Amino acid sequence: MSTEQMIQTVHAYIDRLSHGTAEQIVALYADGASVEDPIGAPVRTTREELIEFYSIMTNLDSRAATLNWVRAAGDTAVFEFTLVTGTAGMSFEITPVDIMVFDDEGKIASMRAVWAQEDLTQL
Amino acid sequence: MSTEQMIQTVHAYIDRLSHGTAEQIVALYADGASVEDPIGAPVRTTREELIEFYSIMTNLDSRAATLNWVRAAGDTAVFEFTLVTGTAGMSFEITPVDIMVFDDEGKIASMRAVWAQEDLTQL
Repeated sequence: MSTEQMIQTVHAYIDRLSHGTAEQIVALYADGASVEDPIGAPVRTTREELIEFYSIMTNLDSRAATLNWVRAAGDTAVFEFTLVTGTAGMSFEITPVDIMVFDDEGKIASMRAVWAQEDLTQL
Repeated sequence: MSTEQMIQTVHAYIDRLSHGTAEQIVALYADGASVEDPIGAPVRTTREELIEFYSIMTNLDSRAATLNWVRAAGDTAVFEFTLVTGTAGMSFEITPVDIMVFDDEGKIASMRAVWAQEDLTQL
């Protein structure tokens, strides 16, 4: 697990948030990985829960994610991205900071997202 | 543990990095807290190890920490700061991203710092 590999996976994650299916996003996760998004929400731990979670977003009319910055060290990457989604003629923007811990094979072992309700704005 | 409390503690932490003793910095941590700085380095877990770790910095000729941004949700704060230190007539700058998880009493339960050797620059 090099810093480069983690950063590549973060780029793949952001790309799939814009263009991928829920299954393609979840394929970046290790088996048994956990997702807490936002931190404080119930932790999702099964493949089915992860796919259900990302399907909420992939089922929207439009979505576009942009990576603002990424930092990585050891087994962990931290990055900020802006996600613009469109549904029912309205557009929303949110800018989370995600914390990803990786396993030895370079798969995402856990993701915890830092954002609050007030970070979600209607455009 | 509110978001406000976590952010206040982050401000206190940054202030003590500039002006506090190692003991005053470590007083922000819960008993049994762990520090992994940078992520990938051995995890420090005892009070003595934490004080020893921060003493390296507090023993330098000069130090000044500036908070660049902070985000918080649930039990976790993420923030970036710039630390300028001076020793033996030389100045160094580093800009880590720290991940802090808090306990119910608002003490820091764990800190993991994201930075790499190449983030340390001589001014």
